[in-house]
Amino acid sequence: MAGEIDKKSSFSNWYNEILKKANIVDVRYPVKGLYTWHPFGFKLRNLVYDELKRLHEGTGHDEVRFPLLIPEANLQKESEHVASFEEEVFWIDRAGKNELDEPLALRPTSETAMYPLFAEWIRSHTDLPFKIYQIVNTFRYETKHTRPLIREREISSFKEAHTAHKGPEEARKQIEESIEIYSSFFDSLGIPYFVSKRPSWDKFPGSEYTIAFDTLMPDGKALQIGTIHNLGTNFSKTFDVQYEDEEGEQQYVHQTCFGISARCVAAVIGVHGDNTGLIFPPKYAPTQVVVIPIIFSDEDEEEILQTCRDVKRELDSAGIRVEIDESEDRPGKKFYKWELKGTPLRIEIGPRDLENEVMTLVRRNSGDKKQKSLENPVENVEDEFKKIDREIAKKAQDNFNENVREIETTNEGVKSLSDGGAVIADWCGKKTCGKELEEELSADILGSVVDSEATDSCIKCGEAGENKILIAKTY
Amino acid sequence: MAGEIDKKSSFSNWYNEILKKANIVDVRYPVKGLYTWHPFGFKLRNLVYDELKRLHEGTGHDEVRFPLLIPEANLQKESEHVASFEEEVFWIDRAGKNELDEPLALRPTSETAMYPLFAEWIRSHTDLPFKIYQIVNTFRYETKHTRPLIREREISSFKEAHTAHKGPEEARKQIEESIEIYSSFFDSLGIPYFVSKRPSWDKFPGSEYTIAFDTLMPDGKALQIGTIHNLGTNFSKTFDVQYEDEEGEQQYVHQTCFGISARCVAAVIGVHGDNTGLIFPPKYAPTQVVVIPIIFSDEDEEEILQTCRDVKRELDSAGIRVEIDESEDRPGKKFYKWELKGTPLRIEIGPRDLENEVMTLVRRNSGDKKQKSLENPVENVEDEFKKIDREIAKKAQDNFNENVREIETTNEGVKSLSDGGAVIADWCGKKTCGKELEEELSADILGSVVDSEATDSCIKCGEAGENKILIAKTY
Repeated sequence: MAGEIDKKSSFSNWYNEILKKANIVDVRYPVKGLYTWHPFGFKLRNLVYDELKRLHEGTGHDEVRFPLLIPEANLQKESEHVASFEEEVFWIDRAGKNELDEPLALRPTSETAMYPLFAEWIRSHTDLPFKIYQIVNTFRYETKHTRPLIREREISSFKEAHTAHKGPEEARKQIEESIEIYSSFFDSLGIPYFVSKRPSWDKFPGSEYTIAFDTLMPDGKALQIGTIHNLGTNFSKTFDVQYEDEEGEQQYVHQTCFGISARCVAAVIGVHGDNTGLIFPPKYAPTQVVVIPIIFSDEDEEEILQTCRDVKRELDSAGIRVEIDESEDRPGKKFYKWELKGTPLRIEIGPRDLENEVMTLVRRNSGDKKQKSLENPVENVEDEFKKIDREIAKKAQDNFNENVREIETTNEGVKSLSDGGAVIADWCGKKTCGKELEEELSADILGSVVDSEATDSCIKCGEAGENKILIAKTY
Repeated sequence: MAGEIDKKSSFSNWYNEILKKANIVDVRYPVKGLYTWHPFGFKLRNLVYDELKRLHEGTGHDEVRFPLLIPEANLQKESEHVASFEEEVFWIDRAGKNELDEPLALRPTSETAMYPLFAEWIRSHTDLPFKIYQIVNTFRYETKHTRPLIREREISSFKEAHTAHKGPEEARKQIEESIEIYSSFFDSLGIPYFVSKRPSWDKFPGSEYTIAFDTLMPDGKALQIGTIHNLGTNFSKTFDVQYEDEEGEQQYVHQTCFGISARCVAAVIGVHGDNTGLIFPPKYAPTQVVVIPIIFSDEDEEEILQTCRDVKRELDSAGIRVEIDESEDRPGKKFYKWELKGTPLRIEIGPRDLENEVMTLVRRNSGDKKQKSLENPVENVEDEFKKIDREIAKKAQDNFNENVREIETTNEGVKSLSDGGAVIADWCGKKTCGKELEEELSADILGSVVDSEATDSCIKCGEAGENKILIAKTY
C-alpha cells in the first residue's frame, strides 16, 4: 500500500488503511461503532457468508428470520442472560409521538426472541432435532474502543444458529457437529484457530459451557471468531420449550446455539494480507483473476487484446470471476491496483507471450511467476488456485504455530506474551488460580484445550493439573 | 386447504390461513406488526429476492450495506421528507444505563443515512452514474391495521436502490431502466401490474415525482408493489452531493431511488394461489417437483421406488429442486400436502406406469395430467415448467384485465368499484377534482397511466382532460 505501513509492527494502522484503500468498509458514518459496507467489501462479505450458509444448509439447518425488537419482559426472563446484557442493550421507548406500552430492546442476540416461538413449533419428539439459523444485524452498546468488523455497535452480519434436541447426548453431538462446521469454514478460509472451552466465568450467560474458536491477529492478540454454546435446559425451562417423548411424557428440550460475526472477514483480511494489500484464498476473492494486456506498440495491440479477451471468455464460461483491465494506466499501476484488492492471480499477455503461445501467470500471495500454454487457461488457472490455497493456509498456520508456546512458569509466560501470541500452561481448574494467572500475565485465559489433559501440576498452585489452558492478550 | 376458505370471497381469511398452513410466516410474535419467517417462507423469499438481486446486478447496481440507525439531525435535514415520517419513526434515546447524546431513528428508508456518504464517494463526473442497492430491515410505526408481508412495522426485506447522475436526462433514463427492472421482475413472477405516476399529493416526500407499480389482489383492492422516485436535486442540495463536471465546475447530482418490499411475496401468494393452497411459477417454488411412488403391493415396491429415485437423481443433477415423498402416508394425503405448498409438478410412478415405461405428470396449477416417457425426465419436466409459467401468467393477466374498466361518470365508478378492481377515467389534472373524485368513489387515485392522454373531458369538472387516471380501493 501507498504509505508503507508495516502490517506486523503497526497492525492497527495497517488494518484501518486497508479497509479504506481497498474499499471494504467506510468508517465515516456519524454514529460510533456503525460502519458502511462498500460494494467491494460487501462482495467479499457475501462470498464468505455464502460458504457459511452452505455449511449450515448441508447439515440440515434451515434459514429463518426473526424480528429485531424484543419486548423487555422477554429479554428479562432468563436472569443470568439479561444481567450480562444489561449494560449493552439499545432501548426503544417511543415511536412517532407515542410512548410505547413496553420498552423494546434491539436484539443483542436472539435466544429470548426465538425460544417463546420454539415452544409453539416443537411439539413432539418427531420435531427433533430442530435446527435453524439466521444472518441478521444485532446491536450491542459496546463501551470498549469500537473497530470495524471487530467490535461494532451494529453487528451488521451476525450468523446465529439455534438447535433443540431430545437429550444431553444429542445436544453434545450437535456441539461436535457445530465444531466441525466452524472448522471446515475456517479451514476453507485458511484461518488457523484454537478450539477451547471457555472458563466458567467467561461462558455465554445462561449456557452450561461455551466452546470458542480464536485466531491470532498480526499484532499477536487473540481474536474470538466463533462461539458454540451448550444451553442444556436452562432456556427451555424458562421459555417452556417441551416435547412429547416416545412414551407420551413431556420433556424439556436440550438446546445449543452458535454464532459467528463479521470478525471472520476481519480475520481473512488481517491474517492473510501483506504490506502491499489484501490476499485472499481464490474461493473468496471478489475478482479471482485479472487479465492485463502488455502492449508496447500499436501493431501488437489488436492481437494481444483479442487474446486477452479470448482467455477471459474461457475463464468466464468456467464460472471463474475474471476481469480484464483495458484501462489507459501503465501496467505497473494496474499491477498495484489489483494487488491491493487481493486478486489471487494475474495473467499478463504481451508480445513475447504471444510469440511463444503462452500467458504469464503471477500469484498474488508469493509473486511467483510462470509461463503456461494458452491452450488450457481454465485448467492452468485452477491448478494455480489450488497451489495458492495451500500456500496461503500453510503460511498462516506456520506463523500461528510459531506464536504458541508451552510455559512452565508465570515468568516465562510474561516474557513470551510480550512477543505476542498465546501460551499453554497446566492448570488445576480452580477459578482463583485462573484469575491470578490472568492478572499476573496481563492476559486472558481463552479456555482449556478441548480434550487436553495436564502433563504437569498447576502452574499457579502446584497442585495436580486438570488440563491445559490457552492464555493470550485478546481483542 | 382444510377448512374450505374461499379465496375470492374471504381473501383476508384465506391469506392468513395459507401463511399459517404452508409455513410462510408466523404471526405469533408478541410485538404488533413484527413477524417471523418460517424456513419454507424464507426459502420462497430468498428465491424471489435472488431474482431481484440478479436484475440489479445485471444493470450495474452494486450491493452495499448501510447502518440501521440514523442520527436525528440527519433525518431532519430534508424538511418535506422528515415531516412525512414524523409519525412513523421508532426512536432510541438510551442504551445500557446511558441516555444517548442524540436520539437515533430506526431507518424508515435510507436517503438520510446514505446521502451524506454519497457526498464523500462521488467526486467527479467519472464517478457517475453511481448505482447501489441494499436489502435490509426498515421500520415504520404503522397505525393502520398491520398484516404480514403487506403492512409491517419491521419491514423485514426492503430492497432499496439509490442512484446519482450528471443531469435530469440521465436521471430520466434511470427511471426508465428502473421501470424495466421492475417490469422484468413482476413478469417473471407472473404478477400483472399497473405502472402509473402518483398524483402530486401522494409522491414520495422530497421527490419530484413517483412512478408506482400496483397489482390487484383477489379482494379487488390494489396493492402497491414497487415505487420509483425521481429526486431531482432536492436531496443532493440538502446533503451537498456534488461532482466536478468535464469543465471543472461543481454540479449537484440528480438522484433517483426505488424500492420493493416483501409485498412482492404477498402478491405471488395472493394472485396465484387457489382454494387448495399455494401456486408458484416453477422458478420460485422452493420445491419444484415432487416424485410420489404409487405402491399397491409389496412385489412392485422395490422397482417403483428405484425408478422414482432414478428420476429424482436425473432431475437433481439438472439443478431442479426435487423431492421424493417416501413417507408412509396414503397417496391422497401426499398429494394434498404438496399441493398446499405449491409444488408446480407432481410425478407419480405406479405399476401401470412402469409397465408402459412412463411417468404420470400432474400440474399443480391446472390439475392437468399426462403420461410421458421415462426416458427424458429433465426435458419433459422443463417443458411442463414452461407451460405452467405461461398458464399461470395468462390466468393472472386475464383476471386482472377483467377487473379494469373505463368509466365515464362517477356513478359508473361507484358501481364498478363495488365489484372491486380498478377504473380508468379522464382527468383534468387538478388536485381539487382528484380529491373530490377520491371522496365520491371512496377510493384512491393510483396515478395517471404513464404516457396516457385523455380522450375525453375531465370526469369531474368537464374541462379539457389531461390524461387517464387509475382509481381503486387500496391496501
